Amino acid sequence: MRIDVLSIFPNMFAPMRESIIGKTIERGLVDFNVVDFRQFTSDRHNNVDDVVYGGGQGMLLTPQPIFSAMDHVKAEAGDFGRVILLDPAGKTFNQAMAEELAQEEHLTFIAGHYEGYDERIRTLVTDEISLGDFVLTGGELGAMVVIDATVRLLEDALGDDMSAVDDSFSTGLLEYPQYTRPADFQGMPVPEVLMSGHHGKIARWRKKEALRRTYLRRPDLLKDYSFTKEERELLHEVEEEESVD
Amino acid sequence: MRIDVLSIFPNMFAPMRESIIGKTIERGLVDFNVVDFRQFTSDRHNNVDDVVYGGGQGMLLTPQPIFSAMDHVKAEAGDFGRVILLDPAGKTFNQAMAEELAQEEHLTFIAGHYEGYDERIRTLVTDEISLGDFVLTGGELGAMVVIDATVRLLEDALGDDMSAVDDSFSTGLLEYPQYTRPADFQGMPVPEVLMSGHHGKIARWRKKEALRRTYLRRPDLLKDYSFTKEERELLHEVEEEESVD
Repeated sequence: MRIDVLSIFPNMFAPMRESIIGKTIERGLVDFNVVDFRQFTSDRHNNVDDVVYGGGQGMLLTPQPIFSAMDHVKAEAGDFGRVILLDPAGKTFNQAMAEELAQEEHLTFIAGHYEGYDERIRTLVTDEISLGDFVLTGGELGAMVVIDATVRLLEDALGDDMSAVDDSFSTGLLEYPQYTRPADFQGMPVPEVLMSGHHGKIARWRKKEALRRTYLRRPDLLKDYSFTKEERELLHEVEEEESVD
Repeated sequence: MRIDVLSIFPNMFAPMRESIIGKTIERGLVDFNVVDFRQFTSDRHNNVDDVVYGGGQGMLLTPQPIFSAMDHVKAEAGDFGRVILLDPAGKTFNQAMAEELAQEEHLTFIAGHYEGYDERIRTLVTDEISLGDFVLTGGELGAMVVIDATVRLLEDALGDDMSAVDDSFSTGLLEYPQYTRPADFQGMPVPEVLMSGHHGKIARWRKKEALRRTYLRRPDLLKDYSFTKEERELLHEVEEEESVD
């Protein structure tokens, strides 16, 4: 997969050199490029923004440097692939979108900054994505979030030790509680069943606690969930236990 | 405001040294600290994770290094303030939460990584926050997103040129389209009304286009919106125009 990101803050992308995503790029699974579109401005003062037509506070990114930087990406890569703009008016990002983007060969992100950007920049874009109903100082963190969620789904990205199969949202449920050593930490013990060695009981406990957590915190997820017969029974137990408390 | 972040990837926080958030920290409005909790492990091999009780792939963060790093934060700052865990099972982050966090004097973030963390770590936490319905390789990007959305709301953070008042979600509507120079870019002109100098018409156009964008892309936001009489009329015009197309 090739990923290009247009941004005037290339140093913000340091997280992409760390940890799992960094290793994925190092190993050549992803060809990751940050294109500083300030280098493509034709403005003699090197500006990339200008005042707003019709009046108003703040500055907007002008179309020219971004269009020229996109021409550069096309010259390098042959195409733009999917062109993603991070914007509060976009579709709210979710796991299904990450899974869809993980199928692509080329993703180009446009990360705006400051107050906003000229509307005509949207004509370059195939997908407008919003992280959620909140406002950030720029699109850089949003681009990194989408890249992280997407790249970790690529084959071989997580390595043998890890797996995306049991993720929250991949199974349709929130994840069950997990415990590691010590067996007792500051008077807080690990649930006995997890140390029983009884695989059937452990699997049942985990399923039930995943259902409990989802029932208590995100009942909306249960509406679309396809229950097995056992899961129906476990959810019923959870409902009874929680209504008693 | 004091912000502490517990993470074993301190280099991932480079974005916090850039742009608006970086300047806010430089100017002393925010005292920002990353605490590498690997430095607090009592494990002789410097490990911070261990195998999962009950079996399963992957490793979990053990409680000890994080509890010890929290003791360090308390010794330095006198308290933890709000303790925020980034987790898919948390409450979905939104602008109202950013506004609430911006009122606090001290925020401590726990950024997990890899497969997950020992359940007992949640006992340290006052707020579990999820960015959205997707899975990331760690909590670092999520912590930065929450910090960015929160810190930009602090008084004086954005400077004179900018304003958080007209943000999408702050007004309850998505933002209207904005344009800057040139008046014609590659055959795409700026809407005439914005160059008319007629303030009343410009304000009306902007309000209408904000309503149109919200109507087309996020009709759910209109359910809770308090309309003025003019806005009701403009929305009615939008509905008629969009039903013709």
